[in-house]
Amino acid sequence: MNLFVALGASVLVSTAALAQTPTWSPPPESQRCPSKWGAQDERGSANHQKPAAVMNAAKLIKTGEVIEIGHVLSEKMPFFGTRRFDVHAKRTFMNQPSNRRGSNEEIVVSEIGQVGTQFDGFAHQTHENSWYNCYKVDENTTRTGFNKLGIHNVGALFTRGVLIDVAAFKEVETLPDTYEITVEDLEGALKKQNTTLQAGDAVLINTGWNKLWAKDNARYVKSCPGIGVKAAEWLIAKDPMLLGSDNWPVEVSPNPDPQLSLPVHQIALVVNGVHLLENLKLDELAQKQVYEFAFVLQPLKIQGGSGSTVAPIAVR
Amino acid sequence: MNLFVALGASVLVSTAALAQTPTWSPPPESQRCPSKWGAQDERGSANHQKPAAVMNAAKLIKTGEVIEIGHVLSEKMPFFGTRRFDVHAKRTFMNQPSNRRGSNEEIVVSEIGQVGTQFDGFAHQTHENSWYNCYKVDENTTRTGFNKLGIHNVGALFTRGVLIDVAAFKEVETLPDTYEITVEDLEGALKKQNTTLQAGDAVLINTGWNKLWAKDNARYVKSCPGIGVKAAEWLIAKDPMLLGSDNWPVEVSPNPDPQLSLPVHQIALVVNGVHLLENLKLDELAQKQVYEFAFVLQPLKIQGGSGSTVAPIAVR
Amino acid sequence: MNLFVALGASVLVSTAALAQTPTWSPPPESQRCPSKWGAQDERGSANHQKPAAVMNAAKLIKTGEVIEIGHVLSEKMPFFGTRRFDVHAKRTFMNQPSNRRGSNEEIVVSEIGQVGTQFDGFAHQTHENSWYNCYKVDENTTRTGFNKLGIHNVGALFTRGVLIDVAAFKEVETLPDTYEITVEDLEGALKKQNTTLQAGDAVLINTGWNKLWAKDNARYVKSCPGIGVKAAEWLIAKDPMLLGSDNWPVEVSPNPDPQLSLPVHQIALVVNGVHLLENLKLDELAQKQVYEFAFVLQPLKIQGGSGSTVAPIAVR
Amino acid sequence: MNLFVALGASVLVSTAALAQTPTWSPPPESQRCPSKWGAQDERGSANHQKPAAVMNAAKLIKTGEVIEIGHVLSEKMPFFGTRRFDVHAKRTFMNQPSNRRGSNEEIVVSEIGQVGTQFDGFAHQTHENSWYNCYKVDENTTRTGFNKLGIHNVGALFTRGVLIDVAAFKEVETLPDTYEITVEDLEGALKKQNTTLQAGDAVLINTGWNKLWAKDNARYVKSCPGIGVKAAEWLIAKDPMLLGSDNWPVEVSPNPDPQLSLPVHQIALVVNGVHLLENLKLDELAQKQVYEFAFVLQPLKIQGGSGSTVAPIAVR
Repeated sequence: MNLFVALGASVLVSTAALAQTPTWSPPPESQRCPSKWGAQDERGSANHQKPAAVMNAAKLIKTGEVIEIGHVLSEKMPFFGTRRFDVHAKRTFMNQPSNRRGSNEEIVVSEIGQVGTQFDGFAHQTHENSWYNCYKVDENTTRTGFNKLGIHNVGALFTRGVLIDVAAFKEVETLPDTYEITVEDLEGALKKQNTTLQAGDAVLINTGWNKLWAKDNARYVKSCPGIGVKAAEWLIAKDPMLLGSDNWPVEVSPNPDPQLSLPVHQIALVVNGVHLLENLKLDELAQKQVYEFAFVLQPLKIQGGSGSTVAPIAVR
Repeated sequence: MNLFVALGASVLVSTAALAQTPTWSPPPESQRCPSKWGAQDERGSANHQKPAAVMNAAKLIKTGEVIEIGHVLSEKMPFFGTRRFDVHAKRTFMNQPSNRRGSNEEIVVSEIGQVGTQFDGFAHQTHENSWYNCYKVDENTTRTGFNKLGIHNVGALFTRGVLIDVAAFKEVETLPDTYEITVEDLEGALKKQNTTLQAGDAVLINTGWNKLWAKDNARYVKSCPGIGVKAAEWLIAKDPMLLGSDNWPVEVSPNPDPQLSLPVHQIALVVNGVHLLENLKLDELAQKQVYEFAFVLQPLKIQGGSGSTVAPIAVR
Repeated sequence: MNLFVALGASVLVSTAALAQTPTWSPPPESQRCPSKWGAQDERGSANHQKPAAVMNAAKLIKTGEVIEIGHVLSEKMPFFGTRRFDVHAKRTFMNQPSNRRGSNEEIVVSEIGQVGTQFDGFAHQTHENSWYNCYKVDENTTRTGFNKLGIHNVGALFTRGVLIDVAAFKEVETLPDTYEITVEDLEGALKKQNTTLQAGDAVLINTGWNKLWAKDNARYVKSCPGIGVKAAEWLIAKDPMLLGSDNWPVEVSPNPDPQLSLPVHQIALVVNGVHLLENLKLDELAQKQVYEFAFVLQPLKIQGGSGSTVAPIAVR
Repeated sequence: MNLFVALGASVLVSTAALAQTPTWSPPPESQRCPSKWGAQDERGSANHQKPAAVMNAAKLIKTGEVIEIGHVLSEKMPFFGTRRFDVHAKRTFMNQPSNRRGSNEEIVVSEIGQVGTQFDGFAHQTHENSWYNCYKVDENTTRTGFNKLGIHNVGALFTRGVLIDVAAFKEVETLPDTYEITVEDLEGALKKQNTTLQAGDAVLINTGWNKLWAKDNARYVKSCPGIGVKAAEWLIAKDPMLLGSDNWPVEVSPNPDPQLSLPVHQIALVVNGVHLLENLKLDELAQKQVYEFAFVLQPLKIQGGSGSTVAPIAVR
């Protein structure tokens, strides 16, 4: 952490705070630690991944149709900040024996884990120096990764998936650029779909935002519609395995409260230990009105990684 | 292609050839193109991925147990040649609003697709300048990837998986360092297991070699037991979706014929369009004697990639 | 080389050619090879670097004033195409002995050699498959560099430097965005400065373009004023050690002839074996009217590199 | 900094300390700050770089002979720890206009600044959280570099260079693997050479160690002969511009006192603000008995960099 920035920040904030109290603040460690999964836990909501979750999902497989909900990875994707996905082809090396076997590969330079369709681990986000379950960043960070909460702890996820099509409920192709999805929107959409949430679900929210993917990248990352603090707390009360959406941060950005920076990231990843799944491609699911399905996700087992770029699927 | 090396090679080889005819040679393009999947096909054996394959696999899910068959990715893995997997932590950036949200990520520099547990696409291997289905390397290669046969064409694989435990059949923990698995070994192991192969299966061969993973990396990559030309041709005649093993090239290395460089790579990827899955972690499947299961694999959708590092699972 | 692109190109061109003959074409190999420096030569104009050149330059050092003519390297630089200069800090690793020594470093990912103030070697540019002295690209290229004409062959350059201030001669701060510098401009500027060129000089041309550096990067790389075919041939006839300028390609871009892509790159690097020095910072030299000086350049000795990012100086 | 490691360390050390007092300890900040160059200074010994230094050096140029004292950069170099120098060729991109101009470049992934012949800046080394002139690491470090003491502050160095050939004085080709050079060795070698040191000199010490470069890399980095605490303090009392040697840390390694980790790095870079120049190629200078010369060094102007890989020269 850059303390200089940090100090500068607190000054700014205390000044701002005089004017107005933020609409949400991270709870003190005493109120969030140890997590409900135990003091040593590093997996959070992934602890829902048990044989029962698989069986519950498998019985939803009725036709064998696989629907891909991950985007293709290329330099044409929208990127957040300075992140990149650079592929440099390493062209044919010709092996000399008689069968004249040529071999190609590529070197990839990327914030793998935080580009494309991505699954956020708990080492990704903090409140001050504190992660999920109150592990400390400065005690567990090395030059080559994070000694606690690494994405390799999660393992594959195979559970019931639910699509909440808020765009369809609002009868729009795409929600407005900074629209905050409300609890009423979620309840209304679920009612319209005749879908109910269960503990351990992979809950995916369709905003229609993925229509901009690789078409208008500037607008895609400038803002986005999504859930805010209230909708996130309502969803997390349902005890999901993860929350995902077809936008870049799952949540609305910027937050309507100018004093808050992506608060749902803290509510999910830091306070409650619920994983996030970003930049999903949900148009096919929505168009086919697939609201309930077997959800399968295989994060790369990156030792100490903050997240993983992924290619999840819905199966029905 | 480096013609200088290439020319040097042909000289070497023609000299060698005087001494002896190789035990196998890549067939001429006229005998292998167009592929059985059609002249424009880029997916090869992945064309087996149809709803029927999913249903056939889903009915094998009886307990909901998920067994991970991918290794953790770290700098401690064995690497082939000059490949690497370097993770550089990008430590906490503190966002300044009142909720003091810190963010971590990492930059990864790696031959992603050709490190760790990896799934080989068809752009990876050639005979001379020619890929699967006779696409030409020099016509379809750019600085940033391959315009044909990219791994993004494959999509997720969800099919019946079969483990052939040759180590158990030979009653050893690990097959010898350069042991070539024979057709008889495969037939014997399948008979012992009372397992039969079906078209579209993910066929995984246990050699016990993964016991060396991250323990004796030098020995792990120096050689390995595995299938040779005959066993590969026998397996491919069964029309599988992919061939995998718990060693680095699926096949025996070095090949008993010193004139051949990994010929099974050409037989599978170039001649027949059958995918390969390398560096699997098969010890748990073997120890639990799980010979038939639902196999699920999600390759990263790298545009124009030669392969993908993966974290596949077996579900029963 | 991507033949597909190449073929597409020839078609385009032959069509265009019907309409009009290009104003310049690369000479056939028979007219440019072997180079005047000998059939095996890889150093071209760097062969001027001899003790006499150093002595000739050293006698110009009269006050000991050092003027830096290289830009600072950062992500804020203008970049050509997809090139980048990414620095990732590798923060303090604390060594455990009693003296508590901390160590910092950084990993840099960049087209080093082709970013910032840069010195072009002969492996950088070709006519078709042919380099300077008719070395062939496909015979001398590997995944890790170029087996001929590598920048490590050049060595440090210490010679007489001459500034030709064309902007001052034209009485403007900065030449117009696509202005082609003529032979008359060069002769006029030299006459006004009372400077003459000598064989082996480092010839630096001031256009004023560096005023846009890191201020208006989009305009900086979109086009630039500089020498064209005629001025380049006139300068090369003077037998310089290198040609440099305060713009990104030394030459005018786009070339007034729409059929030509940076022809001065071929005239200098491919046809005549004269090095180029790009993105110089010449404002201080120009403002102080330093037209003659000791020029010192130390290319990084990158084995097989196509060029080197550099920090040259003028000393008087 | 990883506090966990840090705390672990202090424990270790306090235990060790009971046994024995270290032979050297970093002085408290009160004794070293502000530096003699002023409280805001970031250039340290580079402040010696003034016109007088250039004139003093230029008058040593008598024949114009240039001797390169930097090594070629390649993957065959010895590397310290996990550092690397990876070059990935980006092969010919063919531009389509009529002149058929091909362009090659390469992507380089390396701890540029801390590989090969390298010049150490002050952001590279610390005592606890404190740099040269008591700038603090945690207040001045970002993901992309160091906000204080960046190598871009140094600029080109052009000064009198002196070679102290300790190997020749000891009448050996190469000093023993862990030999600590004494003050008597330095005095004896200077006397034998009939050379005297002046303030602002670039002082280069020949140990013969560079004979192992790229020949026995394992031995090259395992240990090395060089100066220790006493010789370093004696040299720094002469007020040099930099201290360099033909080994990897300039100083003896491991230090004879097992409680000390490269103490000369702290004495030079942290306590006294004297730059270090590592991995020099000094065999030619030594063989030709060139003890006094014009020394020229051009660090890459990497914004916020901890050091620079360089290609320095000696001119006589």
